[in-house]
Amino acid sequence: MDNQPISRFPVPDIADLPDDIRERILAVQEKTGFVPNVFVGLAYRPDELRAFLAYHDALLERDSGLSKADMEMIIVATSAANNCLYCVVAHGAILRIRAKNPLITDQVSVNYRNADISDRQKAMLDFAMKIRDGGHTVETSDFRFMKEHGFSDDDIWDIGAITALFALSNRMASLMALRPNDEFYRLGRDQG
Amino acid sequence: MDNQPISRFPVPDIADLPDDIRERILAVQEKTGFVPNVFVGLAYRPDELRAFLAYHDALLERDSGLSKADMEMIIVATSAANNCLYCVVAHGAILRIRAKNPLITDQVSVNYRNADISDRQKAMLDFAMKIRDGGHTVETSDFRFMKEHGFSDDDIWDIGAITALFALSNRMASLMALRPNDEFYRLGRDQG
Amino acid sequence: MDNQPISRFPVPDIADLPDDIRERILAVQEKTGFVPNVFVGLAYRPDELRAFLAYHDALLERDSGLSKADMEMIIVATSAANNCLYCVVAHGAILRIRAKNPLITDQVSVNYRNADISDRQKAMLDFAMKIRDGGHTVETSDFRFMKEHGFSDDDIWDIGAITALFALSNRMASLMALRPNDEFYRLGRDQG
Amino acid sequence: MDNQPISRFPVPDIADLPDDIRERILAVQEKTGFVPNVFVGLAYRPDELRAFLAYHDALLERDSGLSKADMEMIIVATSAANNCLYCVVAHGAILRIRAKNPLITDQVSVNYRNADISDRQKAMLDFAMKIRDGGHTVETSDFRFMKEHGFSDDDIWDIGAITALFALSNRMASLMALRPNDEFYRLGRDQG
Amino acid sequence: MDNQPISRFPVPDIADLPDDIRERILAVQEKTGFVPNVFVGLAYRPDELRAFLAYHDALLERDSGLSKADMEMIIVATSAANNCLYCVVAHGAILRIRAKNPLITDQVSVNYRNADISDRQKAMLDFAMKIRDGGHTVETSDFRFMKEHGFSDDDIWDIGAITALFALSNRMASLMALRPNDEFYRLGRDQG
Amino acid sequence: MDNQPISRFPVPDIADLPDDIRERILAVQEKTGFVPNVFVGLAYRPDELRAFLAYHDALLERDSGLSKADMEMIIVATSAANNCLYCVVAHGAILRIRAKNPLITDQVSVNYRNADISDRQKAMLDFAMKIRDGGHTVETSDFRFMKEHGFSDDDIWDIGAITALFALSNRMASLMALRPNDEFYRLGRDQG
Repeated sequence: MDNQPISRFPVPDIADLPDDIRERILAVQEKTGFVPNVFVGLAYRPDELRAFLAYHDALLERDSGLSKADMEMIIVATSAANNCLYCVVAHGAILRIRAKNPLITDQVSVNYRNADISDRQKAMLDFAMKIRDGGHTVETSDFRFMKEHGFSDDDIWDIGAITALFALSNRMASLMALRPNDEFYRLGRDQG
Repeated sequence: MDNQPISRFPVPDIADLPDDIRERILAVQEKTGFVPNVFVGLAYRPDELRAFLAYHDALLERDSGLSKADMEMIIVATSAANNCLYCVVAHGAILRIRAKNPLITDQVSVNYRNADISDRQKAMLDFAMKIRDGGHTVETSDFRFMKEHGFSDDDIWDIGAITALFALSNRMASLMALRPNDEFYRLGRDQG
Repeated sequence: MDNQPISRFPVPDIADLPDDIRERILAVQEKTGFVPNVFVGLAYRPDELRAFLAYHDALLERDSGLSKADMEMIIVATSAANNCLYCVVAHGAILRIRAKNPLITDQVSVNYRNADISDRQKAMLDFAMKIRDGGHTVETSDFRFMKEHGFSDDDIWDIGAITALFALSNRMASLMALRPNDEFYRLGRDQG
Repeated sequence: MDNQPISRFPVPDIADLPDDIRERILAVQEKTGFVPNVFVGLAYRPDELRAFLAYHDALLERDSGLSKADMEMIIVATSAANNCLYCVVAHGAILRIRAKNPLITDQVSVNYRNADISDRQKAMLDFAMKIRDGGHTVETSDFRFMKEHGFSDDDIWDIGAITALFALSNRMASLMALRPNDEFYRLGRDQG
Repeated sequence: MDNQPISRFPVPDIADLPDDIRERILAVQEKTGFVPNVFVGLAYRPDELRAFLAYHDALLERDSGLSKADMEMIIVATSAANNCLYCVVAHGAILRIRAKNPLITDQVSVNYRNADISDRQKAMLDFAMKIRDGGHTVETSDFRFMKEHGFSDDDIWDIGAITALFALSNRMASLMALRPNDEFYRLGRDQG
Repeated sequence: MDNQPISRFPVPDIADLPDDIRERILAVQEKTGFVPNVFVGLAYRPDELRAFLAYHDALLERDSGLSKADMEMIIVATSAANNCLYCVVAHGAILRIRAKNPLITDQVSVNYRNADISDRQKAMLDFAMKIRDGGHTVETSDFRFMKEHGFSDDDIWDIGAITALFALSNRMASLMALRPNDEFYRLGRDQG
């Protein structure tokens, strides 16, 4: 089904993209085996793509108190609540791989309350959902509660900021009706 | 992960169940290769399980204007909106098989508006979602709209009744915190 | 006003129905003095009606820790929240009779928080409303809370299952725009 | 059950009330046969009660394009959506009497979309519900729509203002947990 | 921009109004320097305007445990949640003046949880928001909570009744699309 | 009141910040007369601040079919719906200046449907609100509707992307409880 349109907006040819973006895309392709559609979808606006990638790397590649699996879990849970097809399918694949668990994505995206996760991860996702809802109801007592579960100020920032970045990302993907690559649907399902 | 609890309520031993139920369960096991947890979860109350299966068969095995894939699509879309893990995972597997499409379940469960479905199927799911919401806003104009998309009165009944049956089923599964069998997660993903 | 249509779908003649259904209907008529419209409305699909009645009897006629009045109270409170005219009016009549209280139905259907009910019944209805909302937010702490109010696992199942059955029933009644019999409106108002 | 508390706040003795209020209450009692609890509940603050009655009379006793039954229908439909027990029960009794219809209150309070009302009354209640929701989404096109259904500017004002007055009244009654007099529940059910 | 229409309904000439209303309007004009549009907008119906003013004065000019600034804070917070332009702008001006704080209105109207207010005022606004939402979820425990924050029964009534009166007022203003006078936007911003 | 905390997280000293960030901040300060708190609040994480500024500049400083005032209007309307104090107050100031209209911010933030804006701007804000809500309900018909109002694909992208960027920004500001500088509240109110 890969010949369905990737985006509601024009999709640039990789060859025509600015050098830095083309090189990043080719590096991803070499590592993953395919070019995730988010790169070519957002490349309609190279400056915005660059900023998005910079934000993404700053948050997701920093040395955090959250594990890589925790980060992807936040993305999947909040993107599912935002009904964002691209982010659930693409990051769902990454979550399965990071967590070495072929079941976790479907559990977290449908109802994380019944997923095979720890109490700490449950508290993390409850907080992320408050930020997903807008964040305006967050109070001092929420910070206290998170600290009781062992989260530092930096961890809380990471949870909030990842949720906030995907609040942006979900909206862009839904605006574009961005199509997930067929490859993502199956990645990470044969392990565990 | 199959040693996690299946239900919040006691789960009977198959050997101890009434004959008719045990036989039905063994027949399913022979065909599918495993016993779907809904059977043993609901068998805590044999009379209710019998009634559920009778309702299920009356609706899903009748000769309908809806295809088997259409029926499963209704179940997956409305169960996802109800955040029912068991029904999305189990019927999601059946949907992939019935539709001969490994991608369709994730698309329909996250955002059916962006799924690879026909306009007729889109109208069918829009109507199902009105019933999922309670059905009290359905008006004569909705029937007119459905008939313009080629649905008969019987088709409309089927859409509404399948949605209604899974309104029940979703609530029972969430009450039990019914665990989907691990097998369901991967079924039907390697075709297409 | 009994000459208004009973349902948006065709309503079968009682004489034309399968024997078992016709007999049940005539038995109800003999006992009650009229044929509740739900029988003829759902009889458009005899197999589904049979399954519905089997489910209904399995739940509402079992020997439960809930009283008959408790059961009807759950039906009225959740059906009112689902804006289901038939179920509020028909089961509202039964509730008045079972509770021997002519005021209880209007209280429970408009705002059960201000009804003349016990704290235990208030907890029961709070739990039922969580199931009505989908049930996906139910957590272990809800079970603990219910047990503190004296409910057993079986009682909790009954509360959840009755709510789930009427989640189905409300949706079917609203799909059909099922008309309550005029008789129901006044039943049980002259006692107490 | 009349010995239950009428209000969460102190309820004054009729004999102790200012003359004008006591006389109005006695006049109502003479006409109706009992003192509706709203009078004694709100009389905790005589000045506010006087203002409420003045507003009520200005709107509900004026010569309007709406019939008395239309006015009560607006009150019942919006008060039910606000879960206000007192207003649904008390004005529900008045609606049955004004409309000479023992069924209309239960129909309008549970789901006015399925009530035995005219298309014009349906449009009137749809508009009232927009005002109940806050009124901020009302647009010029709503006025056009209402005029196509034969409502004048004055009629539209009346619909909006009655809804607004009971937005106030519902909140006061729920704040007080104002108890409807037992008499209201049965009034007007034996006609038609 | 003062030549934009003040209301969707006809606006009477001050000279043509009944004496008592005209005198009150002229008194306000003398004190404030302009005629707030709510007077001429509501004067389309003199009897209703009189009742509204009587209610307003009974509540807002009584000797209360709430300060004048507290009262205006309730009006601004709940009117903002109701998206009522007139009330937020007009009472926002009064709040700035009463609280001698040029920032307070914008804080309270956008998110009172992050405003520079005391814990007691925060509890007051939380309670007001429950009444704004309809009031049907208020329970005995809310009264207990309020009393722990030092509010008397009379204070609680005042909070509820002010919220209820502006539930009415907001709906009338949005029905009329009542335009705030340009003067209100700037009042009270140059102090503090 | 400027001695209230700016953020729930530590706020770095400008002198300690990386050169590029410090220089940008000083440039803003020179132009505006003060350092907007968002710079020092987000500078807790310099890499994320850089990415945010890059995204912001890519979108808001590009040559767009939207005017600068249109862009700020989108930010104010969607940030108000997200109850984000910092963004409404800071961008509200910019909107007043860009639109040369001292009233526009309060109108757009409380209820843009009643604001002094064109039909085209109304359509723009309606679309932005769909993206604010998650964007998952956007359909082809929305694009058609926008094009009828004269918006190009690029304009639609800009509306969606600005809304998406502030979906992120609002959540970060609410997570931090970021305090708007006192200066913003009054900026742009004395013109027009």
